[in-house]
Amino acid sequence: MENKVLIFGHKSPDTDSVTSAIVMENLERKLGNENVKAVRTGEINKETKYVLNFLGLEEPELVETVEDGQEVILVDHNEATQSIGNIENAKVLKVVDHHSMNFIAPYQIYYRAEPVGCTQTVLYKMYKENDVEIDKNIATLMLSAIASDTLVLKSPTTTEADKKAVQELEKISGLDISTFGVDMLKAGTDISDFTPEQVINIDSKLFEQSNKRFRIAQVNTADLDSIFKNQAYFEQAINEDIEKENLDFYVFAATDIINSNSKIISLGNDAPVVEKAFGIPVDNHTAMLENVVSRKKQMLPPILNALNGDVNL
Amino acid sequence: MENKVLIFGHKSPDTDSVTSAIVMENLERKLGNENVKAVRTGEINKETKYVLNFLGLEEPELVETVEDGQEVILVDHNEATQSIGNIENAKVLKVVDHHSMNFIAPYQIYYRAEPVGCTQTVLYKMYKENDVEIDKNIATLMLSAIASDTLVLKSPTTTEADKKAVQELEKISGLDISTFGVDMLKAGTDISDFTPEQVINIDSKLFEQSNKRFRIAQVNTADLDSIFKNQAYFEQAINEDIEKENLDFYVFAATDIINSNSKIISLGNDAPVVEKAFGIPVDNHTAMLENVVSRKKQMLPPILNALNGDVNL
Repeated sequence: MENKVLIFGHKSPDTDSVTSAIVMENLERKLGNENVKAVRTGEINKETKYVLNFLGLEEPELVETVEDGQEVILVDHNEATQSIGNIENAKVLKVVDHHSMNFIAPYQIYYRAEPVGCTQTVLYKMYKENDVEIDKNIATLMLSAIASDTLVLKSPTTTEADKKAVQELEKISGLDISTFGVDMLKAGTDISDFTPEQVINIDSKLFEQSNKRFRIAQVNTADLDSIFKNQAYFEQAINEDIEKENLDFYVFAATDIINSNSKIISLGNDAPVVEKAFGIPVDNHTAMLENVVSRKKQMLPPILNALNGDVNL
Repeated sequence: MENKVLIFGHKSPDTDSVTSAIVMENLERKLGNENVKAVRTGEINKETKYVLNFLGLEEPELVETVEDGQEVILVDHNEATQSIGNIENAKVLKVVDHHSMNFIAPYQIYYRAEPVGCTQTVLYKMYKENDVEIDKNIATLMLSAIASDTLVLKSPTTTEADKKAVQELEKISGLDISTFGVDMLKAGTDISDFTPEQVINIDSKLFEQSNKRFRIAQVNTADLDSIFKNQAYFEQAINEDIEKENLDFYVFAATDIINSNSKIISLGNDAPVVEKAFGIPVDNHTAMLENVVSRKKQMLPPILNALNGDVNL
């Protein structure tokens, strides 16, 4: 068993989970607890790699399961289902988080959660409260995570506390969130080493509803142009899927995480359903869905409505 | 439904639960949230009455159940079973606590718990962190609760954080915890309006084990003398119970919460078991059990051991 107290975020770690573990480890050390170690619970994504590379920091060690009795500190999550393997047998000493709660500890612990956009905003407050200096590296890690979780303060999850933290973190880090944050987000959505077929399959869901069989695929991007300059290749990959899977239509949505819009490619015999669903013309198989970012909440329902109104489209 | 956000502690409220609600209400107001109201979830005990009377404060309003959707802030507890009626239908906005956890919120909330001796120690930190002045009344409320929960810093639950808070709270309040705290604890254990029969029945448990039928009754006190000057009356009440309930013996423990000892009266045919259990002589039916305060952990086990070793006592 690891002698040190392990600090980690949720599975499939994002920038907040990875950087919060590092920032929490530093806080513990500054407060006199040397016996701590930030680790990661899964592969580091491209966005987080960009941040660590920018600062010349190594990736934390990968830990996928803990032994019975391991002492741990959870950041950016609290629910056992989102945590490391065997978490139910670990001894949780502290939690720092900003999510909804489903947590049991049959002993006293330190628990700190606030309804803000990012765990790092809570950690920022903890540094201030304990008079621990936020140096340039720590400020950059905090700023990166807030930029990631709040889509550069544009997400509706952004709070005043996040904005206030960013103001000071920009000064300390010497970075501008609207340039550094966007560069980081772009790095996270880099699909330059993916084939069009791989891109449309990053997150593609099959639906069989209203007597129709269709897919809605989604990819996040900070650079719609880099995708649509290869539109012909994407159409070829989509049409192959339509033929292979006998689909009535296929919607591929490239979601612009900076401007909170989605540009779609719609193909297949029933592709015109998209015009009806969103009330906009489809031109050259593409359309821009303004302020639409969520497949579950903003894409699927209008498409189902349109199908239900005219199933013999 | 109450328009204001209700702030309250656990059922059967103690000094920490009642005063923490008042102190949290003040903090919220100082931070700009006027729409809050401290309430109590049950009868105020004598100890807490002493504190409120000392400060000339009125008892918070009694609220025993909340309507669906009521917004609330929990202090000094988090588990639904310990909370107000219908808590499962309330909207919990914040929790400030120092207990073990069993808590679910399907939305983001403010949750603040620390492994310290008293909720007021957490609130003390929150005042400092937010640069909110701790005035004389607030300091007295905080000091009272810490004195109550930690038995004037003598309980093994006391932490360095509690002691540190007390140092400053003594200065602000102008009170000495070892005099004011003891006076308060004494007021809490005031049984001057109870008959001896009522006193022995405040918390009396019947045991039928090892072929013996016996009771162990316990009452907390800060003044053993006030009880034992009436020893004859207590013995009369105990002997009546022994006869009425056909008991083999009866142990009545007056637990000195200041010095963490228990002085017992032991009566009945098998009363000598007490000498065997604790390895001390019983004189005039009484004995002093040094460092013994817990019936469950420190009184019952040695008595059962003594009975098992010689059931035909």
